[in-house]
Amino acid sequence: MTEDVTRGAARVMMEGGYAILTEMRLPNGLRADLMAIGPRGEIAIIEVKSCQADFDADSKWQGYRDYADLFYFAVPEDFPQDLLLPSAEGLIVADRFGGAILRPPIKRKLAAARRKALTLSFARRAALRQWPDVPSP
Amino acid sequence: MTEDVTRGAARVMMEGGYAILTEMRLPNGLRADLMAIGPRGEIAIIEVKSCQADFDADSKWQGYRDYADLFYFAVPEDFPQDLLLPSAEGLIVADRFGGAILRPPIKRKLAAARRKALTLSFARRAALRQWPDVPSP
Repeated sequence: MTEDVTRGAARVMMEGGYAILTEMRLPNGLRADLMAIGPRGEIAIIEVKSCQADFDADSKWQGYRDYADLFYFAVPEDFPQDLLLPSAEGLIVADRFGGAILRPPIKRKLAAARRKALTLSFARRAALRQWPDVPSP
Repeated sequence: MTEDVTRGAARVMMEGGYAILTEMRLPNGLRADLMAIGPRGEIAIIEVKSCQADFDADSKWQGYRDYADLFYFAVPEDFPQDLLLPSAEGLIVADRFGGAILRPPIKRKLAAARRKALTLSFARRAALRQWPDVPSP
């Protein structure tokens, strides 16, 4: 289920012109389910929540917001959206084949130095994943 | 042969801490055989030359240098190195399993705006290649 929503949310973002990386480690040690970079360098983080319990158990999602211009939750269609998800954040509903942005997030703007560091980290991580047979330095 | 040298040169750069992308399209329309990004954001381009004729036929290699802090030629062991390759550029000798940097390049320093644009382009391209079943937007 989580994998399906992740895949569908990635497709939604790619259709919107974003390039996507899964399981992106952030400088604060958290790992974003999806990080996306847009054509003008805008950075989005998408956290996948498969069910209410998954959201309730997560006390750390606000730790992601400091590393993105745009923050989304991605959930399956049967997730109780109205009850639980903070309304300032974006909302994507997705299944394995795709999905839709139901609510755009409020835009924050990353500081230039942080955007630069995140973009570099994203670039290196994405490229290193293309060489699975070579150990990372 | 070219593929082997490309692979070995990529390994050399990765051992040096770089993340690598093959066949990277540059803003001037040229396509770099290898582009590499180091841990501090330094950008290297590596052009693979399999033989003397390959180098002689290439009138455009100087068009790559404007998009890198560091420029290397990568060649197989039997390439006539002393005769042909410009001494200001780096030289990697490689086979399919690895290689060595025989000569470091003279460092140029990219302008900040160009580095930013190249890093973003590298990041997006690397990430998009991880989703081969999704058409690029």
